[in-house]
This record gives sequence, structure tokens and C-alpha cells, in this order.
Amino acid sequence: MKIAILGGDGFVGWPTTLHLSNLGHEVHIVDNLSRRWIDTELGVQSLTPMDSIQERCRIWHQETGRRIRFHLLDLAKEYERLKAWLADETPDAVIHFAEQRAAPYSMKSDRHKVYTVNNNTNATHNLLAALVETGIDAHLVHLGTMGVYGYSSVGAPIPEGYLDVEIDTPSGKRSQEILYPTKPGSVYHMTKSLDQILFQFYAQNDGLRITDLHQGIVWGTHTDQTRRHEQLINRFDYDGDYGTVLNRFLIQAAIGYPLTVHGTGGQTRAFIHIQDSVRCIELALGDAPEAGDRVKIFNQMTETHRVRDLAELVARLSGAEVAYLPNPRKEAAENDLIVKNDQFRALGLDPTTLADGLLSEVVEVARKYAHRIDRSRVPAVSAWTKELGTKVDHDPEKKGLRRVS
Amino acid sequence: MKIAILGGDGFVGWPTTLHLSNLGHEVHIVDNLSRRWIDTELGVQSLTPMDSIQERCRIWHQETGRRIRFHLLDLAKEYERLKAWLADETPDAVIHFAEQRAAPYSMKSDRHKVYTVNNNTNATHNLLAALVETGIDAHLVHLGTMGVYGYSSVGAPIPEGYLDVEIDTPSGKRSQEILYPTKPGSVYHMTKSLDQILFQFYAQNDGLRITDLHQGIVWGTHTDQTRRHEQLINRFDYDGDYGTVLNRFLIQAAIGYPLTVHGTGGQTRAFIHIQDSVRCIELALGDAPEAGDRVKIFNQMTETHRVRDLAELVARLSGAEVAYLPNPRKEAAENDLIVKNDQFRALGLDPTTLADGLLSEVVEVARKYAHRIDRSRVPAVSAWTKELGTKVDHDPEKKGLRRVS
Ligand SMILES: NC(=O)c1ccc[n+]([C@@H]2O[C@H](COP(=O)([O-])OP(=O)(O)OC[C@H]3O[C@@H](n4cnc5c(N)ncnc54)[C@H](O)[C@@H]3O)[C@@H](O)[C@H]2O)c1
Ligand SMILES: NC(=O)c1ccc[n+]([C@@H]2O[C@H](COP(=O)([O-])OP(=O)(O)OC[C@H]3O[C@@H](n4cnc5c(N)ncnc54)[C@H](O)[C@@H]3O)[C@@H](O)[C@H]2O)c1
Repeated sequence: MKIAILGGDGFVGWPTTLHLSNLGHEVHIVDNLSRRWIDTELGVQSLTPMDSIQERCRIWHQETGRRIRFHLLDLAKEYERLKAWLADETPDAVIHFAEQRAAPYSMKSDRHKVYTVNNNTNATHNLLAALVETGIDAHLVHLGTMGVYGYSSVGAPIPEGYLDVEIDTPSGKRSQEILYPTKPGSVYHMTKSLDQILFQFYAQNDGLRITDLHQGIVWGTHTDQTRRHEQLINRFDYDGDYGTVLNRFLIQAAIGYPLTVHGTGGQTRAFIHIQDSVRCIELALGDAPEAGDRVKIFNQMTETHRVRDLAELVARLSGAEVAYLPNPRKEAAENDLIVKNDQFRALGLDPTTLADGLLSEVVEVARKYAHRIDRSRVPAVSAWTKELGTKVDHDPEKKGLRRVS
Repeated sequence: MKIAILGGDGFVGWPTTLHLSNLGHEVHIVDNLSRRWIDTELGVQSLTPMDSIQERCRIWHQETGRRIRFHLLDLAKEYERLKAWLADETPDAVIHFAEQRAAPYSMKSDRHKVYTVNNNTNATHNLLAALVETGIDAHLVHLGTMGVYGYSSVGAPIPEGYLDVEIDTPSGKRSQEILYPTKPGSVYHMTKSLDQILFQFYAQNDGLRITDLHQGIVWGTHTDQTRRHEQLINRFDYDGDYGTVLNRFLIQAAIGYPLTVHGTGGQTRAFIHIQDSVRCIELALGDAPEAGDRVKIFNQMTETHRVRDLAELVARLSGAEVAYLPNPRKEAAENDLIVKNDQFRALGLDPTTLADGLLSEVVEVARKYAHRIDRSRVPAVSAWTKELGTKVDHDPEKKGLRRVS
């Protein structure tokens, strides 16, 4: 297959690119490299030394003889170039990772909110409009998030995208299938909620074939392919904006920094290892919907954990302390989370769980590059509202620390 | 009250401006005049001769002694100017009409789709972000559409925004309130569906006080205030993109053009007269939600009609013919529609219905300005998909005509 990977320079996009190239597909990366610019804006860098995308592609070719092509293009701002590119290349599948993906970054300031909505909504919509206009019958696989549903304490198992509801009509109750209702908790999550509506419309009006993967929090860093050469190494974010919870704990453990838990740590979240993430995308590609089908929605996760349990686990493993800090997010203090992932199970996904010992692999990577860590960038500082922002000091190495267990 | 009217140069915005100014409020119009540019793009013009917004404001001052201020500003593109303007003026209420509002225009080409999503989503989101950032506690009243729900044949009465659903949990069924699920039928309607999610998030995260008015199709042209002077006359769109169904029938009747019904005419739609529309906005302003409340959603309509019944009614009234043409839209051929509007009824709305004789007023306006009509702009030419576009010729004065009853 010829596959376009939009956002292929990113944390999930890059290992996906290598995985699919390794399977023999013709892979093209489209990326505007905005994520590298955001590193510059924030004054942070990947823990792992990450080469330019051109250099990474060169190394891959040197190691494997396979070519990955890179195209610098902004999906949100360059509609006409996007359309021309699709018309020229006519990919069989398009995998869409190209969005601003950090909730804290999306809540940093009004400028960041405006950027996130503008970038993500236009990127997704431009892609949909261009697919219709060029008439390319490509399977579109998009990365969404579990977080789109919010984390209320209803305790209902989250189904794979749809819900049957009963509606009262003059002639009695009628059952109707609806998109599972969303309640996003940040501007970032909100944009994924908007994406769902865009997909629903274009699948229905134009028969586009779309799969939306509602992914949990990705942890780990290596996949079989990124391990092949030092310069193929994956991005590893540890800062307060882009670092995600489990990976942050592992890094904090590696550098002797307290594990920063926000609030009670009673938040339950869904997780998936990066190796499983790339495998899921492969599985989804092989299971495309037909034109006229509703959007196919998968929950892409393998296990759920309470944040404080993760912290205690990593603390036991590493001897680190756990610091309970005020929560800068507006969210339920405690929630349960039950998620169905029957579809990927049925397609043959064999999960890599936390129990599989890969936690220590991440700690090793973190120790190896510990000298590259700027400790001052570890705390999460984006607050969800102005009040939350003024009440909170999130740096456990400063006076804001409330409790160290 | 000090009231900002975003999109106040438009068909509903202008009479709303006059209505609220007449009630003694301090009214400011913010508009980028894009709608006038679209007239130029399409080579159409309002049936009624419409002066510049500056001139209209001057006449209003001359007639009434009241001032309306006009500010040229693009909500979607000029975030910083919008924020500065709000911070300077600190309005008590903001009424948001400023979106691209024609379904056919939104489906004209990929460029029009991209423009509509970009304009509408950024306009609404910029406004929300700026309200949070400036900390102004203004009541935001937005104009949404009934069409956001799609027109399926489920036959359930459409409630005012919310639906209680039962969700299975491990501990039995639990009831939860959700936004009434949407199924928009055009890119334009889709943007209103996106707006709903933006509103839900900002009401919940930031306590913004928001009212969303799901309006039916507006008909008529005059209100008590636009009647006061020839130069205060309202915009009246008759072209295939911006003209809406009932007003188009009335114009077609006035110029002896067949009444163009798309498909079987079995589509049922909700309607409201322009005088009631401005009155509803006044009522909604007086019934603001509190900070922390969910978004208040009203159905702003007074009656529902099947399109072919409207056509037959106008035909009887005027002697016009009815032409049944292929439908350029992808939609259900026939649907029922029952809509609740208890909230506006409870607030004292006394509907002006079709039966009240105002149909002939519109025909009179149309006859008066009939010499300004370009007959070639009357047919609706935007097709929802390429296939629909190639099958259809929508001009009943050309060979595409299928049946004249
Ligand atoms: N990392 C996670 O834990 C996680 C969890 C759930 C879902 N996801 C989703 O998976 C996707 C990829 O996540 P990631 O962690 O790899 O993010 P990332 O930020 O590392 O990668 C995103 C890539 O998209 C590019 N991009 C952004 N906007 C673009 C635009 N307008 N035009 C072209 N390229 C653009 C960026 O430059 C970057 O290379 C995202 O959509 C994200 O929401 C990630
Ligand atoms: N007319 C109807 O039948 C009807 C029915 C249901 C809902 N509505 C809704 O009511 C609102 C007003 O409708 P209308 O018929 O008066 O439309 P209109 O096109 O006549 O007026 C919209 C106004 O908004 C302005 N505008 C658009 N984008 C803007 C931007 N980015 N910045 C600043 N100004 C901008 C335009 O210049 C125009 O003056 C719309 O939101 C529409 O969706 C209308």
C-alpha cells in the first residue's frame, strides 16, 4: 500500500512510519514540523537526542534499503498544496496524527487555545474536503483520544464510539444509535470532539471511509524499529506540557525528582505502550470500512490505572518519593474508568502491559540521557482557569510542595 | 444595557439592532461586512436596496436621535483586536450572528466548505476565548439552527437542547443528561454542531453564561423599526444560495417564476417571522443563565410546515405554478418535525403565523423591487455531492424542468 502519514515526525507518527515501512509499504510523511517549533517556543527538548526528519529518513534507508519520503506541508494553512499533493500521490491510506496534542499546552493562554482550535479543526477539515475534492478513495485513519468523553464518575463502560438510546415519539419509544456523547475536559480534547462531528458528516454525505482510534495515554519510547539505530530513536517528552503521566513518573524516578501527582491521584486513565500503538494502527489499516459505512471507532488502549497507583508502583520500583500537588486542571478528583477494546482484541492485539518489565527499559533510557534534562521544565504549570492558576505552585522543589509521601 | 451585536449588518442582525436600540439599549455593531463581499462574489444583491451600514446608522440617528456604533472587525481573523475591543467596551451582553449562514453556499465548492468551517469555528471560538481572557461577565446569546439535528424520520419531538438517556453501568442503569445528538446535513449546519461543543466546554470550564437559540427558517422582511424609513429597509435575499425557502416562494410568485420545490417537497421545516425573531432575542436577553449553569438552549420557531404545502399555499394565493425539481441536497425525501418551543411561550412570545396575512406584505415588497431581480440567480445550483451536481439542472425556465403542477 501507499500510505501518507500526516504528523509522521511526531512521537507516535515516527515509530508508525518505521513500522509500516518495515512491513513493505510505501510510506510518505507529511508534517509542518510545528512540534519542533513548539519545543523551541517552550525552551524544551526531547529527552532523547532527535535528529532532523531528513537525517532520520536517510539513516532508515542506510539501515534497511527502504525509502521514506518527507513533505513539508501545513495541513491547516495550505489547503491548495494539500489537495495538489493528494492528487499527485493518490495514497491508498492516510493516517492523520497532525494535530496539536497536549492538553496543558492547549490551556496555557488564550493564544494557545486559539492556535489549537484553529490548527486542529482546519487540519482535519482541510483533509476531508481535499479527499472529497480529489475523489481519492483512501482509507482515513485518525488518532483521537479516550479523553474526549471526559472522566465523569458515571462508571459506565465506554463502548467503541456509539450508544443506543431510547427516544420518546408520539408512537412510543424508538431506539436510535448516536455517537457516544462527549464531555471534553480541555481545549485539546474539545478539538477531538469537533473532529468526530466532521468525520460523521463526511462519512455520511460523501461516503468517505474513516476509522477513528480513541487512544489512551501512550507510554514507552522504543519500538522494534526505533531500536535499530541510535539515530532512529523516538522523541521522548518529559516537560510539564507534552510529557504524559506515566513517562513523566519514569523520568522523575530516573533523576531523583519527586513523582508529581496532581490532586488526590484518584484519576483513572487508559494506557497503551508505543509498540502496541503502532501495531493497532497496522490492524486498523487492515480492517477498513466500506463507503457508506458509519465511522469505525476503536478504543486503542490496553489497561487502565489510577494515577496514584502508578506513582506508588514507580516509587516502589525506583525508591522515588511521591509529591501530591494542587491540581491545575479542572476535573473530577476521582473517577472510575472501564473501557471496551474488544475490536482490537478480536483483530489479534496481544497487549504489552506494565507488568511486562518495560517500565525499567524506560527508566534506563531516562538515566542514559539524564544530563539533557532541565529540571525546571518538569513541573506542569498550565492552569485550566485563572483561579486555579493563582492558587497553585506546581514545583515540588520549590515552596509549593504540599505533601511528600 | 450595553449590547454588542456581532454580525449586526445582516438579515437578522440589522432588525435586532434597531429593535434593541429602540428599547433604549446602547447598541454596538461589530461586522466584517463579509456578507456584502459574498454578494459581490456571487453577483447577486439584496432584493431591497440596502444602504451602507454607516448610512443606515446615520438615518437611524436622524429618525430617532439614538446612536448605533459600527466597528469593522473580523471575529475569525482578528483575535487581538476583538479582545482589545471587548476590554474597552465591556458589553453586558453579546449577540452573535457573525457566521456564514447559507447551507448551499457552504456546499458550493471545496473552497466554500473550507471558508465556512474556518470562519464560523474561529469566529465563535475567538469570541469565547476573548470573553474568558478579558474576564467580562457578558451574557452571550448565539444564533444556532434547528437544522443541526438533521431531519430524520424518527418523528421524535425535538426538545430544547437536551436529552435524558439511560446508560448501562455495572451497578444498573443510570440516567444522564446529554446534548441532544446532532446529525447536521450540510457543512454550514455542521459548524453549528461544532459551536454547541465549544459552548458546552466554555460554560463548564469557565462559567461563561451562554444562551444558544436554535432558530427555524426566518421569513418576512419588515419589522416595526425597519418600516420607519425607506433607508432602514432590511436585506432580502432571493438567490439560490442565501434565499430561504418561504421568502423565495413569495418572490417567485411576485415575478411570475415557477415555485421551485426540490424533490417531493415532503421536507418539513420550522419557521419564524423576522418580527418574532427579534422579539425572541429580546426575551432571551432578559432570561440569562447564571455562571456555572449549563448552556441554555431555546428552540426559536413558531410553526412547522411541509415545503410542498407552503408552495401550494403561495400558489393558491398568487396563481403561480409549482415546479418540482430534482433535489440538489442529500437529505431525507420526507420527514416529520415536531418541535418544542415551550420556553419562549412561557416568556410571553405571541407568534405571528403565516395565517396573519403577512405573506402578502412580502409579495408586495417583492413586486415593488421586482425590477432589481436577476432571474438567472433564482435557481439553486449548489449540489451536495458531485453525483447530485451532474444529474441535476435546477432552472425550471430551462430544459431541466421535470414537472409543473
Ligand atoms: N501521545 C499520546 O499519549 C497520545 C494519546 C492519545 C492520542 N494521541 C494522538 O495521536 C496523535 C499523535 O500524537 P503524538 O504524541 O505523536 O503528537 P506529536 O505532537 O509528537 O506529533 C504530532 C505531529 O503533527 C505535526 N503537526 C501538527 N500540526 C500540523 C499541521 N497543521 N500540519 C502538518 N503537521 C502538523 C507536528 O509537527 C508533529 O510532528 C495526535 O493526534 C494525538 O492527539 C496521542
Ligand atoms: N436567516 C435565517 O433564516 C436563519 C435561520 C436560522 C439561523 N440563522 C442564524 O442567524 C444568524 C444570522 O443570520 P442572517 O440571516 O442574519 O445572516 P447574514 O449572512 O445576513 O448575516 C451575518 C452577518 O455576519 C457577518 N459576519 C460573518 N462572518 C463574520 C466574521 N468572521 N466577523 C465579523 N462579521 C462576520 C456578515 O458580514 C453578516 O453581516 C446566523 O448565525 C445564522 O446561522 C439564520
